[in-house]
Amino acid sequence: MRDVFVIGSGMIRFGRYPERLLEDFAGEAVRAALADSGVDPGRIGMAVFGHSQGGRVAGQRVLRELGLTGISILNVENACAGGGSALHTGWMAVASGLHDVALVVGMEKMQKGLIPPNPGEYEAVLGKTLPAKYALRARKHMARYGLTAAQLALVSVKNHRAGALNPNAHYQKEVTLEEVLASRPVAEPLTLLQCCPTTDGAAAVVIAGGELARGVRQSVVRIAATTLKSGMYRNALKDPLSSDDDVATRTGAAAYEMAGLGPTDVDVAEVHDAFTIGEILAYENLGFCPRGQGGRLVEEGVTSIGGRLPVNPSGGRLSLGHPLGATGVVQVVELTRQLQGRCGARQVPGAKVALAYVVGGSTPGIGSGASTVHILTM
Amino acid sequence: MRDVFVIGSGMIRFGRYPERLLEDFAGEAVRAALADSGVDPGRIGMAVFGHSQGGRVAGQRVLRELGLTGISILNVENACAGGGSALHTGWMAVASGLHDVALVVGMEKMQKGLIPPNPGEYEAVLGKTLPAKYALRARKHMARYGLTAAQLALVSVKNHRAGALNPNAHYQKEVTLEEVLASRPVAEPLTLLQCCPTTDGAAAVVIAGGELARGVRQSVVRIAATTLKSGMYRNALKDPLSSDDDVATRTGAAAYEMAGLGPTDVDVAEVHDAFTIGEILAYENLGFCPRGQGGRLVEEGVTSIGGRLPVNPSGGRLSLGHPLGATGVVQVVELTRQLQGRCGARQVPGAKVALAYVVGGSTPGIGSGASTVHILTM
Repeated sequence: MRDVFVIGSGMIRFGRYPERLLEDFAGEAVRAALADSGVDPGRIGMAVFGHSQGGRVAGQRVLRELGLTGISILNVENACAGGGSALHTGWMAVASGLHDVALVVGMEKMQKGLIPPNPGEYEAVLGKTLPAKYALRARKHMARYGLTAAQLALVSVKNHRAGALNPNAHYQKEVTLEEVLASRPVAEPLTLLQCCPTTDGAAAVVIAGGELARGVRQSVVRIAATTLKSGMYRNALKDPLSSDDDVATRTGAAAYEMAGLGPTDVDVAEVHDAFTIGEILAYENLGFCPRGQGGRLVEEGVTSIGGRLPVNPSGGRLSLGHPLGATGVVQVVELTRQLQGRCGARQVPGAKVALAYVVGGSTPGIGSGASTVHILTM
Repeated sequence: MRDVFVIGSGMIRFGRYPERLLEDFAGEAVRAALADSGVDPGRIGMAVFGHSQGGRVAGQRVLRELGLTGISILNVENACAGGGSALHTGWMAVASGLHDVALVVGMEKMQKGLIPPNPGEYEAVLGKTLPAKYALRARKHMARYGLTAAQLALVSVKNHRAGALNPNAHYQKEVTLEEVLASRPVAEPLTLLQCCPTTDGAAAVVIAGGELARGVRQSVVRIAATTLKSGMYRNALKDPLSSDDDVATRTGAAAYEMAGLGPTDVDVAEVHDAFTIGEILAYENLGFCPRGQGGRLVEEGVTSIGGRLPVNPSGGRLSLGHPLGATGVVQVVELTRQLQGRCGARQVPGAKVALAYVVGGSTPGIGSGASTVHILTM
């Protein structure tokens, strides 16, 4: 397998676009990525789209609008990990040598608002919806490790502070610790400002292998690792609340091995903070701190912009927004630009190694159905 | 890229299963494929599922039931070409060396019956549904090349005759030319028996590369080519009725080039006969006969079992059934078994080269959004 590089990135400002078609705003992200890469669109051999609610052949409908047709087009669904899974798939196409240049797009128009349960998804029917599931994990963390409500809320404060510096974030407004704690309870201890909003969005990257990747831009970013894994049945049965810890830990460990790097090498990360507790657990599962110490990490400012390991400088799911299939790709857009030094007020100075992590597809019996970790290097 | 082989195949009997969950019958197909391969399930590194209506992370729900979890699981959507696209993706995973063994599953529970139009799919809203679209193409072929209603109907007679020999077909009953012509008109000249039924189904293959592929069975089948392409904007504008001819021709030509083979090398084929005219056009687009001669080919019995180039010996979409995402995979199940000489009464003797073709994802402006061609060899 050959090296694969991100040679262009694009996104729209995340937000609510009830009047815009998915085809329209996803096309805007694709055009931005193509322009950023400078690559001739005629060189793109394959396009992979990650989405959950776009309907049949949604990627084809997007590219039809751009006249970018005739190529290999694939739609990938893996719930909140759909964008990461699309990048993983596009990477296979280029790493294998089948295509020299591929387009990877994550997009979602959250037409249905909340995510409805699948048929047979008995846990959700019984009330164990995603907010409830994450709330239980937060409670358990509090009981076992002494995580405090304030530490949890600080994740939201930190990410909204970053989002306020990101002109593409859905919410560009700081919130105080008091505001987070006093906001409406959704599933205690998670308050409204600790749950991601309902956001439409699209993001795209152009990836390339071989000679082409070295010619188009001065600062291309290497995909040093890409891993996709699912939760394990036996672990979920042992401890339903920590099965996500297991999938994140395994997916992260495989990525570190593939990249030949470890947690201490990471300079900046984007992780799955659909709920504040998700980010705390990500710290621990990805080895940013020992287990149980995630609350302290955010409290000490380690993961803030300016800290030792800034996490979610984009504003994360809590402030940038979380359009399911778009998330895995927009994380890589943010991290590519961080490595390229293009992030203005929220720039992490001198970042050389970046990590992106998404998880999703709640599946009773195995926890999460899909998780991806990508490690990018300059 | 390394060679990839089909080392196991499985399917359920196609039919209507309103009382069975998708997870249940797709799991049955997976178990059959695993048993057929003889491979230790623990060696499977990735599973790719093709479906359109399974809901979020449907593949994960299927494998959860089998306890086959922790691995890389991906869901692929490409309408009627979803199964072929899943195989293409699984092939990339193995050909690249990322995984040694992969599972590819096509499945569909046709919960919604007919395929509803996508938002913004203006042609369908105006009445150009799939039957209408294919009917127009049949009319055009009649006007331009003199295709007769009887030739068209003979495709259904032929495929039902084959289906009657397939214990896994939805309909295992021969029909006469008179019955086909006299059945209820759906979109003239297409009568009911010239349109595929609404069928639930699932099919699976285990694919492998490297040493493993050579150890598990005596008669493994090589994937000599796999191509995925979409319709082209400019061609669809030039001639909306022949844009599918274009995508099939380009996808087939690329597959022949990849395999180093040509149409005259093909011993047996499975093609997209969702409507009878689809099979006639496939003959021409894939080079089985000159353009305009498709009707004569079926009339002369060339594509019947016992003919020079049997097409759709499984019974095809018309008799085996057409569960969208399952079709691209079940074609490969049938052809693998044909090459292995395991097809009993419908066996094509001595077949060494087989071709599978699906097309789908009607997208106004580009015709079909996805088409795959796979060439299998012994």
